[in-house]
Amino acid sequence: MKKIFTNASQIVTAKTGGKNYKRGNELSELEVIENHSIFCENGIVKDIIPNYAVNKFVADEKINLNGKIILPGLIDCHTHTAFAGSRANEFKEKIAGVHYEEIAKRGGGINTTVTAVRNSSLTDLVELMKPRVQEFIAQGVTTLEIKSGYGLDFENEIKLLHAIKIINEIFPIDIVSTFLGAHTFPPEFKDDHSGYVDLVVNKMIPHIAKNKLADFCDGFCESTAFTSKEIDKIFTVASNAGLKLKLHTEQFNNVGGLDVALKHKATSVDHLEVLLANDFSKFTNSETVAVLLPGVSLFLDYQFAPARKLIENNAIVALATDYNPGSSHILNLHLIMSLAAIKMKMKIEEIINAVTINAAKALNREQSVGSIEIGKKADFAVFNTTDYSDIVYNVGRNLLSHTIKDGEIIFQH
Amino acid sequence: MKKIFTNASQIVTAKTGGKNYKRGNELSELEVIENHSIFCENGIVKDIIPNYAVNKFVADEKINLNGKIILPGLIDCHTHTAFAGSRANEFKEKIAGVHYEEIAKRGGGINTTVTAVRNSSLTDLVELMKPRVQEFIAQGVTTLEIKSGYGLDFENEIKLLHAIKIINEIFPIDIVSTFLGAHTFPPEFKDDHSGYVDLVVNKMIPHIAKNKLADFCDGFCESTAFTSKEIDKIFTVASNAGLKLKLHTEQFNNVGGLDVALKHKATSVDHLEVLLANDFSKFTNSETVAVLLPGVSLFLDYQFAPARKLIENNAIVALATDYNPGSSHILNLHLIMSLAAIKMKMKIEEIINAVTINAAKALNREQSVGSIEIGKKADFAVFNTTDYSDIVYNVGRNLLSHTIKDGEIIFQH
Repeated sequence: MKKIFTNASQIVTAKTGGKNYKRGNELSELEVIENHSIFCENGIVKDIIPNYAVNKFVADEKINLNGKIILPGLIDCHTHTAFAGSRANEFKEKIAGVHYEEIAKRGGGINTTVTAVRNSSLTDLVELMKPRVQEFIAQGVTTLEIKSGYGLDFENEIKLLHAIKIINEIFPIDIVSTFLGAHTFPPEFKDDHSGYVDLVVNKMIPHIAKNKLADFCDGFCESTAFTSKEIDKIFTVASNAGLKLKLHTEQFNNVGGLDVALKHKATSVDHLEVLLANDFSKFTNSETVAVLLPGVSLFLDYQFAPARKLIENNAIVALATDYNPGSSHILNLHLIMSLAAIKMKMKIEEIINAVTINAAKALNREQSVGSIEIGKKADFAVFNTTDYSDIVYNVGRNLLSHTIKDGEIIFQH
Repeated sequence: MKKIFTNASQIVTAKTGGKNYKRGNELSELEVIENHSIFCENGIVKDIIPNYAVNKFVADEKINLNGKIILPGLIDCHTHTAFAGSRANEFKEKIAGVHYEEIAKRGGGINTTVTAVRNSSLTDLVELMKPRVQEFIAQGVTTLEIKSGYGLDFENEIKLLHAIKIINEIFPIDIVSTFLGAHTFPPEFKDDHSGYVDLVVNKMIPHIAKNKLADFCDGFCESTAFTSKEIDKIFTVASNAGLKLKLHTEQFNNVGGLDVALKHKATSVDHLEVLLANDFSKFTNSETVAVLLPGVSLFLDYQFAPARKLIENNAIVALATDYNPGSSHILNLHLIMSLAAIKMKMKIEEIINAVTINAAKALNREQSVGSIEIGKKADFAVFNTTDYSDIVYNVGRNLLSHTIKDGEIIFQH
């Protein structure tokens, strides 16, 4: 099937030339290609050709984008979309002044969601996720990471990973699955942390790796969750089992998570709100992506990660929603982009690269998605404007016109 | 035409008993009526009846809300929806660290929009406003205030007010029109402030009042805009001409705006980000509504108005988007509600009253809209949830199901 996407006012994309990420100053490099059309075959970008040459190409279908702009399909590289239950009550408590960590210490927080997930069937979970995933698609998201981490026992973690797998099969977008057994300690292992770590490394990881239920193994290194030593043990086993690594770290406290993640060459380290100045340079030559989550900072009314310092130190910076019921109940990647501009002072070009090519790298998918380049998937987000700045400048307004996955229009406003 | 709206899981509304606003502690009083239906006739609420009694009423139409919740139509009581042009470049400058007032001093800011509006035809302005108003309707807004203030000469201010009038006629929702000639000094009066004030009071206000082109006269009392003495002069003339009053004040500096507005018994004072502690008690017995605009604080990365202090001091607090291209490019009243919770620590019940009954009072429409009560307009916002907290807790996600105006379904997701 040959298709031509033509008459966009602009094609806006990272140009990577095969390097497939942007670090430091490169993050603000964005190609704006005018008067060109995208020629695709079987869902792959085959050529980017001048509009005047379009008629020389034979295509089965010609899609007129009527002066709109076309970007790579957006990528949300950190979400907890697989949850059940509501934490609206906890949200009210936070408004009234109770701290997120305080709620967690009382056994609320993540464990409230764990109870709800354990009480939900696989079918329930799939049904709950469907409208959420549809909403991401309505924003132009074509690659979506989803973590487990609300089951916290063998059966329920597996149930979540199966729900994510089913969602990947139901929807045309690419779902990247992450095992987050090390999210927090479940109530039954409250006083037996090593027992839970043993369960993760001896039973969960081997099963998940063997059955290819996840691409990544993730963890939460924090004073209320896992120590760096526990993460080191989990990462060693996960890595040997063939899983790629991610880590939630430096969110509230510095307890050694960053170093252990870098030691294991994790694909990404996520959060970094309290990253120490002394640690900025650790990203300078590292291929580990710094995934920043400004929605959490807004939602918890908390400090933002030092995006500019990371960029100054040559880091590979990505952005994501961290969509979850407790700390970032924000199913809106565009709003995250606006927050990155307003609160982190990221340039609009940097932000676009951070939710496309660098988000692809944070998912180890940068060879196939994240930019509009020959040989990559024809995954596009088309916006109803002629200026890509508008996507960020329109705070809380969805300008998306079409979502295109593997060359097919899968959503239209 | 008789209609019954039935089978909502909850009817959520202020119960005012004819007082028609909520101040101080009352702001958190919200009625949640279960197992009841709303009986309407010719667009007016006639009765709220138990579901079991529905069959005793004869109606032409019965609308089944299938367990959704029903609120009063939302009211955005402060917007600048009537604008042309983009200020995305200024947004980028602000990200790079240039202050809003600095941009204004250089002749950018509001005057950038003034140039664009002067270069737009009446038809252009109406066309630009249409999708914006449609977006408000898609959020459940049934009463929308729109200001002029980007014309700043006789002809262009009149043009804006006519565009607003046409929008009111095209769309089924109620548009409240505000004359904001005293928004800033236009370039041609840069060095002749008294000349511009004379133009406002001698030519604009008499014409606007005579031709009923606006309900309100508004101004911006600020060190870069109008002095309190100038506002006093404008308000005296406007009030005598029969216009109600509003004032943008205490946004960046305290230059006497609050006192002059209270002296003239203005319907509302808007902004208040730098309201002084000594001034809190001025709201204790005042009927002037404090309209807070958290979107501006987010967009400009600036301090938030002291909502809790105002509530503690018995103020009548309302919330609005302040949708405009320079300081709050946020066409999303639900996001404003979430920001009020997260950043101003307003309770969810307070927030709902602040965008319904108190927003109605800020527009002098509290007799006819703002709550679901007998004798008021059948203006409703129906949400696809069973818990009204979800509207605020879902940050940046639109849960609206139906917008109902004068008993008619005017929008459906």
